[in-house]
Amino acid sequence: MADKKAQIGVIGMAVMGKNLALNIESRGYTVGIYNRHRNRTDEMMKDHSDKKLIPSYNIKDFVASLETPRRILLMVKAGKPTDAVIDELLPLLDKGDVLIDGGNTNFHDTMERNARLDKSGINFIGMGVSGGELGALHGPSLMPGGQKEAYDLVAPILEQIAAKAKDGKPCVAYIGPNGAGHYVKMVHNGIEYGDEELIDESYNIMRHGLGMNVDELAKIFHEWDQGELDSFLINITADILTKKDDLGADKNKPIVDMILDRGANKGTGKWSSETALEGGAPQSVITEAVYARYISMMKDERVAASKVLPVDVDKVSLSDDEKKELIEKIREALYFGKVMSYAQGFEQMRIDSERYDWGLKYGELAQIWREGCIIRAQFLQKITDAYDKDPQLKNLLLDPYFQDIAKKYQKAIREVVAFAVKVGIPVPALSAAISYYDSYRAEVLPANMLQAQRDYFGAHTYERVDRPGNFHYTWYEEQ
Amino acid sequence: MADKKAQIGVIGMAVMGKNLALNIESRGYTVGIYNRHRNRTDEMMKDHSDKKLIPSYNIKDFVASLETPRRILLMVKAGKPTDAVIDELLPLLDKGDVLIDGGNTNFHDTMERNARLDKSGINFIGMGVSGGELGALHGPSLMPGGQKEAYDLVAPILEQIAAKAKDGKPCVAYIGPNGAGHYVKMVHNGIEYGDEELIDESYNIMRHGLGMNVDELAKIFHEWDQGELDSFLINITADILTKKDDLGADKNKPIVDMILDRGANKGTGKWSSETALEGGAPQSVITEAVYARYISMMKDERVAASKVLPVDVDKVSLSDDEKKELIEKIREALYFGKVMSYAQGFEQMRIDSERYDWGLKYGELAQIWREGCIIRAQFLQKITDAYDKDPQLKNLLLDPYFQDIAKKYQKAIREVVAFAVKVGIPVPALSAAISYYDSYRAEVLPANMLQAQRDYFGAHTYERVDRPGNFHYTWYEEQ
Repeated sequence: MADKKAQIGVIGMAVMGKNLALNIESRGYTVGIYNRHRNRTDEMMKDHSDKKLIPSYNIKDFVASLETPRRILLMVKAGKPTDAVIDELLPLLDKGDVLIDGGNTNFHDTMERNARLDKSGINFIGMGVSGGELGALHGPSLMPGGQKEAYDLVAPILEQIAAKAKDGKPCVAYIGPNGAGHYVKMVHNGIEYGDEELIDESYNIMRHGLGMNVDELAKIFHEWDQGELDSFLINITADILTKKDDLGADKNKPIVDMILDRGANKGTGKWSSETALEGGAPQSVITEAVYARYISMMKDERVAASKVLPVDVDKVSLSDDEKKELIEKIREALYFGKVMSYAQGFEQMRIDSERYDWGLKYGELAQIWREGCIIRAQFLQKITDAYDKDPQLKNLLLDPYFQDIAKKYQKAIREVVAFAVKVGIPVPALSAAISYYDSYRAEVLPANMLQAQRDYFGAHTYERVDRPGNFHYTWYEEQ
Repeated sequence: MADKKAQIGVIGMAVMGKNLALNIESRGYTVGIYNRHRNRTDEMMKDHSDKKLIPSYNIKDFVASLETPRRILLMVKAGKPTDAVIDELLPLLDKGDVLIDGGNTNFHDTMERNARLDKSGINFIGMGVSGGELGALHGPSLMPGGQKEAYDLVAPILEQIAAKAKDGKPCVAYIGPNGAGHYVKMVHNGIEYGDEELIDESYNIMRHGLGMNVDELAKIFHEWDQGELDSFLINITADILTKKDDLGADKNKPIVDMILDRGANKGTGKWSSETALEGGAPQSVITEAVYARYISMMKDERVAASKVLPVDVDKVSLSDDEKKELIEKIREALYFGKVMSYAQGFEQMRIDSERYDWGLKYGELAQIWREGCIIRAQFLQKITDAYDKDPQLKNLLLDPYFQDIAKKYQKAIREVVAFAVKVGIPVPALSAAISYYDSYRAEVLPANMLQAQRDYFGAHTYERVDRPGNFHYTWYEEQ
């Protein structure tokens, strides 16, 4: 055991824990490390014998190796494994120590753990970490939530290891109390689902609606990445389209054509939609993205259905100019759809921030997503700008920049959705985007009829346009 | 206390409990009744002094007033009130007694209660009751789930009080073990949300897209009710459109125009969507219906947004013939949308029946919804027929009748959605319906691109079209 103590400890030496430990160490810190099975610790020490790492082989030694107040980052599997480690640690900790859960934890669990540990005077931070393995090593986007005084104890380290935006600001900020950090990471992932689905629908319209080949598409996405759509996901989409198969008989085939169209998921998009349903937030674009993955998983059924379900769609033959025009409209539709998806995601965060009394700072959230995470994009600066101008902004669509986008591009998304629906290309997220826009800007929606129906069959009462209160109409003679 | 014992007891004398007790009594049974506060019991006895009712004023007397094995129907508020009554009852019951929860209970709670009470040998049935107050009195649709032997003990009573379909069959059947009954009721309610939203979107297109007045619409819905759309909800929609205001200054105004467009909900549609997300069922039409209610609730925001958000939509001027044609297409689109919504609802039930090992009989479910409940419709016979032909049917769309509908009406829904999107009328559920159809019949979806993206940024691996297994591509040089 070294005499010098570690300024922070990391539990869990799987790839994310290992890379975060190395990232922290590279900023000049001494890091205590511990893993349930010693082989991973040994491996880490073997590969990085020159680093300021203090390995421990039982949890007691690990806790003893840390400066007080202790700062411990848990990078273990979410759920029971996390609780198991917490239970082991608890008797060894002192008041004022800080536990940080950097796992992929449901924010409800984080809220519960924060409250439970707080009773023993232990600080508990739930921290969303985005950016994958490389992000963890070189600079992730970090979303920590919990006791503010605990955040202050770890802020210097987090600010050093986080990604830096072009203006030099670290992609980390105090998100809010208890589960706010893991909550915001969940919404980030939901937004990521929406971005991916919108891109993939755009790809699909061009590929199967316009019959374009993969090389043409690579060029288009590369062009899009130079403009206002500039983002990590558009960038890698362009890159993916240039890659050839590495395994099959024909190495000239695009890899994308060798990949099976079954879209997997790890549950955070689903959590995000469930939370939207729970809180009353109309988060349709992300939810359609989740459902699109579910339908994609039914590959065998789809192949069978494709053989028996009738198709009756318009045949299109477009001139080169018309095609070029439509491609530009698809770009505009994609941007419009993205704006709707973010408007919904930020609306959801506003609703839940009030529900849980978190005091989320929306502009800051967009700011810490500018680098390090999967949804990093130029575009996020526009969101920060909007909330800088009006921190109480109810909906992104009410900001002048986004109104301008809506004005410029709504015609395009209307035409693209109409085109896709008529030629039989599924566009669930793009359709949800324009329906959301048309619903949100509708002074009158047909929910008056809904309320009449509900009052008719269930005496649920209705409100009136001309006076306050709840009313019941005598729709029929009671029997 | 009467010497004769009651064959069944009802706890909770609010309107649903009262009406079910009267319904049971009217079939020749003696019914024990009990309410936490005696005033409701007194009222019941005063209004129905000639009926075979045995009132009790404490729960011990109530239990003592019942034949054994006891049959007790709980009609109290879902949640804690239900648990409170169960806790009071438990020490007074004997092995083999049957408790029936007829409340609006989440099926997860029913599963938990069924398992808990089963340990004491008490049977617990969770029963969905649809049809509102009048249904309870004259004949509801009943969805009981729990121990089969317990169902057999109450089946004679349930069959007598249930609604009767035109072929004389009672609208009740044993649904399955533990929470199956409340689960099916939840999906029923989700489907009801979908039906209502599809009707309301159709109404909205005609009202605000085609500029039709309420009298014209009443006629259209009345016509639709004569054909294949024949259903309770279409019927009441037509009726609603004929009703004039009962309160305002101008009694000639249609009541529907005096009703505020804020669509309320009691949570079962939300539960249905949450369960779909949890189970991997792409239930987009119902979910869009839930979100449509959420957006409608944001009335103040919408009014504000309507003043600042730009509109850029096609102007339409249709000839009378074109208008007539489009109205018929809207009818076809509504029917097509309804088919998609039911296909999704039954797909969800298939997925969850496997997940929870319930052995749901899908054809029978459609059968017991033919009368008594809110979604009652001719159309349900077609679903029963489909499952009679093939009890293992994977999706309703694979049945010849529904394929034929898809063939006949898909062009119409494509045109109606394209029209609505271009003129700026929100059609979230109709769009979701056609996107679901086009996704389900798609041999290839763009989830290949999604899997490439996920493997690129997170090394999540992908499957291939040419061989089994999970693969990772080297998208870039690791740093």
